[in-house]
Formats: sequence, structure tokens, C-alpha cells
Amino acid sequence: MKKYLEVYDYYKSLIISGQYSRGDRIPSVRETSALLSVSRTTVQNAYFELQADGYIISRPQSGYYVTDAAHEVYTDDKAELSSPEILYDLKSGDADSESFDLTLWQRYIKSALRQKERLLSYSLPKGERDLREALSVYIREKRNVVASPDRIVVGAGVQALLSILCLLANDKKTVSFPTDSFTQGISLFSGHGYDVHIRDKNADIIYVSPSHMTSYGDVMPVSRRLELVRYSESKGSLVIEDDFDSDFLYQSKPVPSLFALSGAGNVIYMGSFSNVLIPGIRISFMVLTKELAQKFDKMQSCFAQTASKTEQIALCDYIRDGHISAQTRKIRRHYTAKTKQLYEELKAHLPSLDAKISENGLAIKIEAAYSGNGEEFEKAGLAVCIYGIDNGIIKLALIPSALETRLIKEAVGLIKDILQNNQ
Amino acid sequence: MKKYLEVYDYYKSLIISGQYSRGDRIPSVRETSALLSVSRTTVQNAYFELQADGYIISRPQSGYYVTDAAHEVYTDDKAELSSPEILYDLKSGDADSESFDLTLWQRYIKSALRQKERLLSYSLPKGERDLREALSVYIREKRNVVASPDRIVVGAGVQALLSILCLLANDKKTVSFPTDSFTQGISLFSGHGYDVHIRDKNADIIYVSPSHMTSYGDVMPVSRRLELVRYSESKGSLVIEDDFDSDFLYQSKPVPSLFALSGAGNVIYMGSFSNVLIPGIRISFMVLTKELAQKFDKMQSCFAQTASKTEQIALCDYIRDGHISAQTRKIRRHYTAKTKQLYEELKAHLPSLDAKISENGLAIKIEAAYSGNGEEFEKAGLAVCIYGIDNGIIKLALIPSALETRLIKEAVGLIKDILQNNQ
Repeated sequence: MKKYLEVYDYYKSLIISGQYSRGDRIPSVRETSALLSVSRTTVQNAYFELQADGYIISRPQSGYYVTDAAHEVYTDDKAELSSPEILYDLKSGDADSESFDLTLWQRYIKSALRQKERLLSYSLPKGERDLREALSVYIREKRNVVASPDRIVVGAGVQALLSILCLLANDKKTVSFPTDSFTQGISLFSGHGYDVHIRDKNADIIYVSPSHMTSYGDVMPVSRRLELVRYSESKGSLVIEDDFDSDFLYQSKPVPSLFALSGAGNVIYMGSFSNVLIPGIRISFMVLTKELAQKFDKMQSCFAQTASKTEQIALCDYIRDGHISAQTRKIRRHYTAKTKQLYEELKAHLPSLDAKISENGLAIKIEAAYSGNGEEFEKAGLAVCIYGIDNGIIKLALIPSALETRLIKEAVGLIKDILQNNQ
Repeated sequence: MKKYLEVYDYYKSLIISGQYSRGDRIPSVRETSALLSVSRTTVQNAYFELQADGYIISRPQSGYYVTDAAHEVYTDDKAELSSPEILYDLKSGDADSESFDLTLWQRYIKSALRQKERLLSYSLPKGERDLREALSVYIREKRNVVASPDRIVVGAGVQALLSILCLLANDKKTVSFPTDSFTQGISLFSGHGYDVHIRDKNADIIYVSPSHMTSYGDVMPVSRRLELVRYSESKGSLVIEDDFDSDFLYQSKPVPSLFALSGAGNVIYMGSFSNVLIPGIRISFMVLTKELAQKFDKMQSCFAQTASKTEQIALCDYIRDGHISAQTRKIRRHYTAKTKQLYEELKAHLPSLDAKISENGLAIKIEAAYSGNGEEFEKAGLAVCIYGIDNGIIKLALIPSALETRLIKEAVGLIKDILQNNQ
């Protein structure tokens, strides 16, 4: 066992056993070093770890103090959002703790942080050149999206990229979204003076998410993709293809991207890595049309890069070394296995339930007789995606990606109780 | 010497001496491990380092290949911006390589990356709660800005924060900027349909940067600050105080922030750490007025956090441990010493030159007889900030923060030649 972990355990046990309570000052690095006969570096490392795990905090010029022992911070965050406690997350589609090799990512971040000269300047408005080169290769291989790095713009999330598009496409007047639930995009475009329509194929800009049409995982079929591409070309409108979740398509055959289907070059392709990696890593990208890429170059002094430079450098090497592809395969296997397990558990407990796995393999769609108002799920600590309660029928989707495998059985038990008690 | 550095040096010397040339494949990790009788981990670490330094790149399922030996990527970046080569940067105000302890920052990043559970979810729209708590304490101590964490919003750069403000303040119609050179802010507000004015005290929103009024370091005096605060209160207008560079004020006494001077709560305070840390770390924040903070809460589904979650967690602990304050003191000393050295060097070579150090201590303002067109500086590899050539007089500012100390003498020699040849 490493020396610093011994020091870590020493204080952790004193805190947990209550010998130090909240707000107590623990000995300084110097004092502990003398007390336990270990080096100051060892103590410092132990204190780092205790801070990382939420047991202590440091106050400048004062010392180290005991927190509420553990996850004070998270509790606060939840309180701020004022949502009830979620014990079984079948809604967010977030990552679970088993799916991502954080140690590997740490190595890439460490390597990026060694490039001091590079970190001394701001990133280019479009993002790091080498990352855009790696992305250019990646999307050509994966999605048949052929575009030079000059047309790729990196940003911290889809909203950051859309706000650039709002400025670039300012000769357009109307924009269409598939539903009214994408508040981030809608508020952004309407804030820029665009008229926002829902499902209007005659809008000047058409935002679609063809690989993730609904939160319960519907995929736009090729025929409709072709139709959209043709119609938008004939109308001269701009299509924004947010290729969210395309990496997860498994039941259906891989569906070609709108960008690849379009010959006229009126499609903007958008992708993100938050789902394949972890949400904490916030890097998205878009492929502009040739005209908009030229406009970006002319206007580049108007745009500042939002994505972390360190993370851009790390992601570039991570992609080049093939880890994105490997990681995608891994979580696809992992999440679809979990969906299948949830499905089988449901069928075992509720044999007559109308349930089916969604096209993208990440969700289970359920329809059931129902007399409740939907609050029963929340009260039981279940977060589920309810998309309709009508005529005594509830339609809902369960997305198990964030739910730990060991909790599937319990969650199904609760769902069973709710559905049987509210028939 | 560490084992992996031996492997690193071995390949580095083979590459530099030309025994491997561009595009050559170097032996795989397995092959090198056998060849040099070292462990694979050692070889892997050496390869990481060679990649970090730009000597080799890795191609998935293929191997490691020699690059142009060294800084291929940076050359590309410069080409893309199509600016002439800068040998002496006296303009950008960027950080130099001596000023930031990257190793210390690495430790905080490493510690942040250990908090796996936290990284599995998206950051709150306003940013991490504990970072906002640390910021609340920090700005209260440093700038007498008293505001609860609920009013603080974190984002990846000032532009990202301004784009939130554009949406929040949509009952306003006109915005005023101090100059027409802040293209990022101007394009953003005009893109949102605001009328943009320059230096208009009757605008609905007044953006000011009182601690950095010009690129040559002028500071807004207290009398004008008070005047602006009073007038904006009487008109009911919103003031955006970008407190850029306030940390560097050294010649003048610390000037109170507009936020602290205002009693009416109509000031939004903005700050950034890119200058105190390094530009590669992209975290800014703003303190909203109470009304706008409430509006943010109502509209929070419209906003996604842009700053890296890892960097937010790291920065929180970095601030709590007192490193921001220490780092600020360090670079203030360092940069002002450099400015002084540049000043003395100028005076030694051009005793009659009209030169003085700016109020914030970061720039030297020069006025000189001049018959050229300003291109002589660029041609000599000097980036300087020229803010006027009129009636045979050139006005310029030299900002030495990014210039390595050892290059000061050379730069002064070139400036002397240019000024004497173009009298």
C-alpha cells in the first residue's frame, strides 16, 4: 500500500468515526508530517485525495477543515435544481460509471498538459488544427462525411456551435425544429430574431436529429432522409443535421448521414463526444457548408473558441490512437446488453406488458393501461420518460444507460407495482 | 535518469540526426521493448512523450510514424491565420512560458479527474456549485464584490457569457461599447438585434472595461466610475463591467469596482482567469443582477454550461488553496519587472524618446517622429500595437508580457533602427 494512502485512510477513519466533526481543523501538512513521520509530499498527496473525495476542504492562509464527510457538494447541486431524489435513472441517457476508462483519458490529459508552449496561446476560433484534421479523418471513415479540416469548427457543446450558426446564417429568416422540447436551440434562434416553427419543411433552416428523432430512440428512415435532402435542395434551404447518437445505431443497419446523401452541399453536420466519452468532456464539432466556412473565415475575429485547449489536444491523440472507435464499440455493447437485460426482466415480471426495444437499442418503449397521473414514478425515485397519458393509457420510455446493472431488478419491481396499482 | 527518458532520447536523436525521416514508421512498442530490453510500459511512456513533443504521431491499427520533427502543427496554425512570422511579440499581452507553474496545475487536474462520479453528469447551467462558492469568496476579498453563488454564472470565455446576457436582457434595445474594436461583443449583440452604439452613455446596456480601457493600459479613474454608476442608475440602464486585467493594477492604487460602487444593483461584474493562469484554461464568470439571476433560473433549460467540468473542479480547489492569489502576485511582479527592463533598455538606446509606462504597468506608450507607414515593424518581425500615425507622429504601445526576457535587447535594437531610419 502506498504511503500516502495510509495517511489518507488514517484521517478518513478519524472523520468517519466522528473523532473529527464538521468544521474541525485537521493538523497542517507540517504537523502531520511530524506526527506520522512521513514526508510532507506524502501528506500533501493524502490531503489532495481527501479533498478530491470531499472529506476536507482547504481554506487559504488558514488550513484544512472537515466537511460534512462526503458528498456535501452534490447534495447542494441537487437542492439547487430542486428536483426530487432520483434513485433509479431511466431517463437521462447519461453514462454509467462502468463505461469509461478514466485512467486512459488521464494519460492523454497529462500528455496534453506537457505541451506548455501550445497552452500559452488561445486556441484558433475554429479549434485546434490537428484535432480538426483527426475529426476530418474520423467522420469520413465513420459517417462518409467528406470535408477538409478548414470546414470543421470545434466548440463546447451543440449550443455553442448553434450560436455561431445564428450569426453566420443571418440572411435566413425562419428555422424549424422537430419538437418544441429543444429549448436551448429554440431560445437561441428566437433570441437572434429568427421565426421559429415546429416541423415546417418550408423553413429557411431545418434542424433535424435523424439518428435520434425522439427521446425514445426513433431513427429517420433512408427514404425520409432522401426526401428531406431533395426538398431542401429544391428550396435552397439549409439543413442542420445533429448526428447525436448515430454511434449507437445497432438494430437497424447503419443509416447514411444526410450530409453524405446530399449532393448540393446544403447540409451542416454536427457531432459530439459527450455520449461516447463522458458528459464532463465537452467537445462538439460541426462541418460547415463551403459558403459558411468562407464566411466564418471572414468573420473569424467575431468568434472565440469555447472548448478547453487541453481537452482538444488530448482528444486529438485519443482519436488518432483509435480509442474513440474502441470506446464506441464498448459502450454500444454495454448499453444494449443493459437494455436487453431490462427488457427480459420486464417480460419476466409483466409477461403481458406491451414493451419493445427502440430502434437505436438504447430505450424500451412501453404502453400500458393506467389510471394515475404520472407522479407515482417520481415518488418512487424512478426517473422515466413519460411522453403521453391519454384515455387510460400511459406511454413511456425507459433508458437504462445511466442505471447501474445491479439496480435493474429493483427498478423493475417498482415499475411493476406502479403499473399494477394504477391499472 | 528515468528509463523512459532514455528511450525518448534514443528515438529523438535518431529522428533529429535524420536516421528516421518524415513518414517513417518507428518500431512498435513490443518491438522496441525487445530491442532495448525495457518494459512495454516504459516504451509506451517514451512514445507518449515523443508524441507530446511532436516527433511522432500514432495511426490506429498501423503504428507510430515520424513527423516533420518538431512543430509541424504550430506552423500549420500560423499558415492558416496567414499572418507574417512574429519573432518579438510586444502586442498580444499573452503569458510567457516562465510565468505559470504547469506542474502544479497538472496536480489539480489529476485530482479532478479522479472524481469519476462527478464527471459522469453534465455541469449545472450556471457551472459547478463549489467553484461558484469559491469565486464568491474570492471576488468579495479581492474586489469587494459581494454576491451569493446563486448569482454567479461560469462560462468558457467572455463571449460565451455575453451570449447568455444577450438572451437574458432581451427587454433592452441599445448597447454601447467603448470602441469599435471589440468585434466579438459587437457582432454578438447586433446579431441578437440590439442597436450597437460606440461610447453612448444613454444606451440601455453599457459595456465597459474600466481596468483596461485601452490596449495600452489606461484605467478609468474613480471620479468617472462614480459618474458612470450614478448616471446609469438614474437612467435605469444596465452596466456590464468586464474587470479584465484588474489584477494587474499596480502603479495606481487599487481602484474600486463599479459593482462595489453601485448601490442600485444594476451592474453585472465579469472576470476571467485566462490572463492570470494561461489562455489554454478557458474559464470566465459573471455576477448577474438579482433580477437577471432570477430570470436565468426560470430560463435555465435554455442554457448549457460551456466550461470544462474537469477544469472547473480543478480551478475550485486551486482558488481555495490560495494559488490564484499567489499566481497573481507572481506574474504581476514578473510582468512589471519586464516592462521596467524594456523601458530602461529603450531609454538607454533612445535617451530622447517620449516613452512612459502605462497606468496598469503592463505597457509602454511611445510617441515619436515618424515618416513610415507602420509596415516596417511587421517586416522586422515585431508585433507592436500602433494606435495612430498622424502628422509625422507615430503613437504605439509595447506590451512585453509574452516576450521572453532574453529577447528584450534585440527587440529594442530593431525598434531603434526603425525609428531612426524613419524620422
